[in-house]
Parts: sequence; C-alpha cells; structure tokens
Amino acid sequence: MEKIDEHRAFGGVQRRYTHASSTCNCDMTFAVYLPPLADTRRVPVVYWLSGLTCTDENFVNKAGAQRVAAELGIAIVAPDTSPRGEDVADEDSFDMGKGAGFYVNATEAPWAKHYQMYDYVVSELPALLADELGTTLDLSREAIFGHSMGGHGALVIGLRNIDRFAAISAFSPICAPTEVPWGHKAFPKYIGDDKQAWQQYDATYLLSNADNAQALPPIRVEQGLADNFLDEQLHPHRLEEAADQVGADVTVHRREGYDHSYFFIASFMEDHLRFLAKHLGV
Amino acid sequence: MEKIDEHRAFGGVQRRYTHASSTCNCDMTFAVYLPPLADTRRVPVVYWLSGLTCTDENFVNKAGAQRVAAELGIAIVAPDTSPRGEDVADEDSFDMGKGAGFYVNATEAPWAKHYQMYDYVVSELPALLADELGTTLDLSREAIFGHSMGGHGALVIGLRNIDRFAAISAFSPICAPTEVPWGHKAFPKYIGDDKQAWQQYDATYLLSNADNAQALPPIRVEQGLADNFLDEQLHPHRLEEAADQVGADVTVHRREGYDHSYFFIASFMEDHLRFLAKHLGV
Repeated sequence: MEKIDEHRAFGGVQRRYTHASSTCNCDMTFAVYLPPLADTRRVPVVYWLSGLTCTDENFVNKAGAQRVAAELGIAIVAPDTSPRGEDVADEDSFDMGKGAGFYVNATEAPWAKHYQMYDYVVSELPALLADELGTTLDLSREAIFGHSMGGHGALVIGLRNIDRFAAISAFSPICAPTEVPWGHKAFPKYIGDDKQAWQQYDATYLLSNADNAQALPPIRVEQGLADNFLDEQLHPHRLEEAADQVGADVTVHRREGYDHSYFFIASFMEDHLRFLAKHLGV
Repeated sequence: MEKIDEHRAFGGVQRRYTHASSTCNCDMTFAVYLPPLADTRRVPVVYWLSGLTCTDENFVNKAGAQRVAAELGIAIVAPDTSPRGEDVADEDSFDMGKGAGFYVNATEAPWAKHYQMYDYVVSELPALLADELGTTLDLSREAIFGHSMGGHGALVIGLRNIDRFAAISAFSPICAPTEVPWGHKAFPKYIGDDKQAWQQYDATYLLSNADNAQALPPIRVEQGLADNFLDEQLHPHRLEEAADQVGADVTVHRREGYDHSYFFIASFMEDHLRFLAKHLGV
C-alpha cells in the first residue's frame, strides 16, 4: 500500500493510497480522511461508496465531509467505483464498465476477471486497512454510506453484513435495481440471466426477505425531488414498502428542489455523518 | 446574461451565468451562490477571485462556502480567471494566458484585446449584477476575497477601491508580485516594461503608499506553512512589513502543515466568511 497524496484538512489529513488488489486483479486507489482525534486514539470508520462515473476523488473534493468528520472524530474511507487499468474490460457508456462496477462480484466474461467490487469493499479493503492502519482505525466500529450507485452499494453491503455495520445511509440510492433500467443493463452483463443472483444485489429484495428486521442496522435515505433519475431509476418508495412490510427502521427524507448532484450531497452531509456517528457510539 | 446551470444547495441556489463581456471582448462565465435569505431580502455580495488554472467552478465545487453563506445570508460571486475562447491569446504554460489573467488590464499585444480582468471584476461584472440581479443583491455592501493569484487580485482590487469593499481577505495570496517570478513573467507580457505600471498591481506597494491607512478596509490573510509556493512566490511578510509601516489593519494567520490546495481553503473558509460578514454588518 503506497501513499500517493496527502493534504492537511480541518486539522486532520486527507490521504490517497494505491495498492495491488488481489480481488480485482489490478491496482486500486482509495482515499482516507483521518480526523485530528486519530493522532491520539483509534477512530471508527465510515465507508463512502460513490456513484456512476466517479473515482475516489469526487467525494473528497466536493462533499464537504471532512469538516464534520474532524469534529466527530471519525475516519472516512472512499474507494474507487470500479477496477481500473488498460487491460480491464470496459464499454463506451457511463453506466457499464469502468466507473460503473455496481458493487457486484461479476461472474460473466469479460467482466469476472476484474469486476469484484462487492468482495473488494466487504473483505479486501477492510483487511488491508486493518493491516496497514490498524493502530489508527478501529475496524470493530464501521458504518457505510454512499450516493446513487454507491447508495445501492451501501444498502446492499449493509443489509448483507448486518453484524458489521452500525448504521447505513444513502443519498439518492438505486433502491430496487432489479426493477429499473440501470440494473437491467448491468446485471445481465456482470452476473448473467439468473434473476435470483440479481436479487442478492437488490436492497429492496434483501430488506423484504430479512429474517429479523429488528436486527437490521438503522437506515437513512435522502432523496431530492428535482432529481432527474428519481422516477425511472431510484424508487425509494419500494424500499419504504419493504421496510413497512418487515418493520425495519428505514427513514426516507424527501427534499424539495434538490437534484442528483454533489450540491445535494453536501447540503445534507452533516446530517448523515451525525446519524452514522450516533449509531457508532460517537 | 443567460443562466446555464442551477442547483439547490443549503436551502439557496448555486447558479452559473454566461454573458457577452464588452470589457473582455468575449463571452464570460461566472458563478453566483444565493442564500435562502435572498428569497425575501437583498443580500450583500462577496466576490471570490480564483487562482491560476481555475475557472469559475473550482471554488463552487471545492471550497465548502455555500453552507456558511447560507447561514450568514450573503451571496458569493465567483468570476472566471481570464477571458476565454478560440480567438483569445494564450501560452502553453499554466501561469500565463488562459486561466492566468492576474486581474490586470493588459496594455500589450496580443493580450490587450481580451485580458482586461481588472476592469471586468471592478466595473463590468458589478454593473451587470446590478442590472440583472439588483432586486436580489445589495451592491452597496461588497467584500472581496480570493486565493493565490486571486488573493493578489482581491488585495489589489480592495486596496485600489477602498470606498467599495467593507473588508478584504486572501488565502495564500501573491503579496508582492513585482518581486517574484510569477509577476516577473506575467507583468512584462501583459503590461510592458514600465515598473511603475506594475506597482498598481502589487498589494505590498499599494499598502506601503496608502495615503490614509486608517481608511483602508481590514485585511485577513491565511497562509499554509507547507505551501510549496510560499518562499518563492507569495511573500506575506512583505505585506506585513508594509502594514506595520503605515499602521494598516492586516492580520496574517500562519497555519502549520497546510498546503496551497482547496483542502486548506475549505479548512478556513468559515473563518474568512465570518470575518467578511462581520465587516459587512451581517
């Protein structure tokens, strides 16, 4: 793991690391913000998963999260959204291939060789952090959040690993990808035509079929009502229906006038970090 | 003036406008953040001038200013850093030509035709704002700030128009451009070899030669001590010496570990906006 960038920010440090990923079979880059408290104590970790077209840098530059993370004493880890490199399969579209890993483990050619983003985020990255930054990060205290495709990733990863994450939150997440065009495009290519396999990457399905809704981590969703993707791709009402059905703790905040951009994310970043921090016991 | 982009942010709106500039003889683009208070009352205006390589967008995306501007009820106007367009003279370097207007009125060929950024910021842009957004913006209450080349611009424009600006602030400004490589490169090309002409764009010179130091607006400077440009290009000690000599209200805050980036700017954005707002009577 090599540190490739570092900037002081709000009394802490914003870093970028690269490493050879055995899961994705390529070099992967991720960002870590360490709050001032990390100088003297191990701090909890919040993972941020970004949306389509993003790298690890969009969140770091645009979300305004460091100020709040510094105050709360939490670290934020932001991975890339797909494998990268010249030999990594790609398509000439923004919603498939590089920048569009959808946080799945691909099973189909030519994607399966590198597109293993579910395992990368769930297993390899936390293990790497434990090895390399274990004296700084307290990996027994984790939460996860994200935006759009990354909101989908956060919900799916959180719901499939309920003992790991203290809370889950999402901005404008793709709540029911098996039912919308983005999922209908990506899932057959990455994981084939078996719709039961798709369901393991659908937050609404996972929530509907949760064994013990009381054991689920609390979920907060923020959704702008001027979001161009809302009606066709996002479907937060489906997540709410599933939550009602099983009695899970899911709250969707709808925000008049807000769109799908980082201006929306930044506007409610403090609320989300405080929500996650509260459930992390901060 | 045409609105080309708009996003809701922190209860207000982040907009982008383009217009035909008679001063720069080309289309110019600028950003405006309007706080929620602007829905019901005319709000004071703070101008942000960006540094080398920037457009109107860097500040808007990276500085985290909207949150504080929303709370304080101030608008922020962020112009571009140079004229733009295919027929605009340029050089293949980051510190001359497009993205590097240095907020001067060029007198030399081929620059003079378009590079009139001093007059653009001081006169044309405020007049345009008064015409087009005069029911929203209170242009009798103005302050100005900026970063690096834009910190130089803010200091020079503030010191040459002391009845206009309630306060001036700057992050990592080029405090004495007539004495450093950036000025030695740009000034001869833009405004010729007459060093007396250069002095009108040198904040340290202007401060040293101020007639009535008590009448000057208060100035706050933030400077990171890990800034790679500090020793060669920025020279805040020269501004302090001039302030001491004339008894002007200039405070330079030096910050251990901070560099020249927007992570530094974002870290102290709230302090600067509160400083400017206080002197605007907010």
